[in-house]
Amino acid sequence: MKENILQDIISIVRESSLILKQNYDVTIKGGFANIVTSADVSIQNFLYEKLSKLVPGSGFICEEENVYDPGHEYEWIIDPIDGTTNFVRQLRESSICVALAHNGEVIMGVVYNPFKEMMFSAELGKGSFLNGEPIHVSDRVYENSLYFTALCLYRKQYAPLCMNVLKEVYQDVCDFRRFASCALEICYLAMGCGELLFEIRLLPWDFAAAALILREAGGCCCSLHGGKLQYETPTPFIGANSKENLEKLSAIVSKNIPEVPYKNFE
Amino acid sequence: MKENILQDIISIVRESSLILKQNYDVTIKGGFANIVTSADVSIQNFLYEKLSKLVPGSGFICEEENVYDPGHEYEWIIDPIDGTTNFVRQLRESSICVALAHNGEVIMGVVYNPFKEMMFSAELGKGSFLNGEPIHVSDRVYENSLYFTALCLYRKQYAPLCMNVLKEVYQDVCDFRRFASCALEICYLAMGCGELLFEIRLLPWDFAAAALILREAGGCCCSLHGGKLQYETPTPFIGANSKENLEKLSAIVSKNIPEVPYKNFE
Repeated sequence: MKENILQDIISIVRESSLILKQNYDVTIKGGFANIVTSADVSIQNFLYEKLSKLVPGSGFICEEENVYDPGHEYEWIIDPIDGTTNFVRQLRESSICVALAHNGEVIMGVVYNPFKEMMFSAELGKGSFLNGEPIHVSDRVYENSLYFTALCLYRKQYAPLCMNVLKEVYQDVCDFRRFASCALEICYLAMGCGELLFEIRLLPWDFAAAALILREAGGCCCSLHGGKLQYETPTPFIGANSKENLEKLSAIVSKNIPEVPYKNFE
Repeated sequence: MKENILQDIISIVRESSLILKQNYDVTIKGGFANIVTSADVSIQNFLYEKLSKLVPGSGFICEEENVYDPGHEYEWIIDPIDGTTNFVRQLRESSICVALAHNGEVIMGVVYNPFKEMMFSAELGKGSFLNGEPIHVSDRVYENSLYFTALCLYRKQYAPLCMNVLKEVYQDVCDFRRFASCALEICYLAMGCGELLFEIRLLPWDFAAAALILREAGGCCCSLHGGKLQYETPTPFIGANSKENLEKLSAIVSKNIPEVPYKNFE
């Protein structure tokens, strides 16, 4: 594989965002939902074409169109639009996410919000960056933390579990937020804007790139009971700016949700 | 009073935002919390000076420094920074809010997010605008609504009540958001990005300008049980894109919170 491909990935992601922006700027005919679907697929196809050339023989795990071809030495994990509802509603909180894994370990990650011109990137062992500038998690203690969360939008039967965690966390921290692009929210932890994040069910493309960005910025993340995050199935995701805060949040999550309430892609 | 003062108010608010941006751009010495307090007070003083000249003899109801001088024919209702925590954390979701009331009725409103260059404005009977372009609420039905809410940050004893409302609303709507500048969130309803909003305890300066912007964009808002919003004390605030959606949300709020759980400025 050629050297310094992170800059190539950044360029390709930036180029792919033109598809989003073009659809966003033109008058919509035939409904915004159609546009979103077509933008999702167009971006994924664009990334697939460009990235497969960048790393010949690489595999792909993508959100759209059942592109799921794991088991290669190098694998791309892609979400063409994270935060689709925000995109539909022009809330400017959506992102394009690309991660590159080597033998199952993510080694590069890019998360880009083209509407706010925020390009997050990281390479394993080399730190995290926002628009080329180094970023770092905050040093805020638990009581001064901002907690990002969601109520499991696509599986509302798990909302009460998430609500119980929110209830318990909220009592002791500064406040909570729901901006609703989880990849961007994980990156907000990386840049020190927030400290805690929990989602009960994320897919690999939701967090693969952002989790590396968080870790390389000094933060940490895990699954239930401190478990290692898996890239094969949906998973609970717990993130924090520090190990101490991760342990506190993780204890509350584990108490309220002792085991993963779903199996595989259920 | 001179004609067309809305444009003057917009210019004054834009000018006041330089205080925010200057503090935001420089290296912070002495702690961000100090900066916020000083920016809050500086903006309020700037607005007080300019606006009292614009409408001689006018009164002021402001968030900072106990500026509370109601009972005039013309009154300014001002929040120098709505979304202070976001400002501290550089989350770009904060706003400057200025409303002008005549004999207790708000006739002009301006809400400005200088970090996203979004200037919302409205004049009674003349419609609402974002950066000079007309805006309108969405026509989405309840089931497709986005619900903005909070858990009563400054009075956490009321969080469980807000959580009960969230729980019931969430089951039937599209999703929820917590961006945490309530004035901006009310404006997002006005521009069609969201449909429902409830906060258990807002102060007049939090919603005075934004409520006019929402109504002039075709939306509606009220207190508990459809009551008229008051500008003298803290109040529950329920907003929606349509009367039908307001009634549905209001019914859920009233069921869970049959009466205001606080008195005056408690």
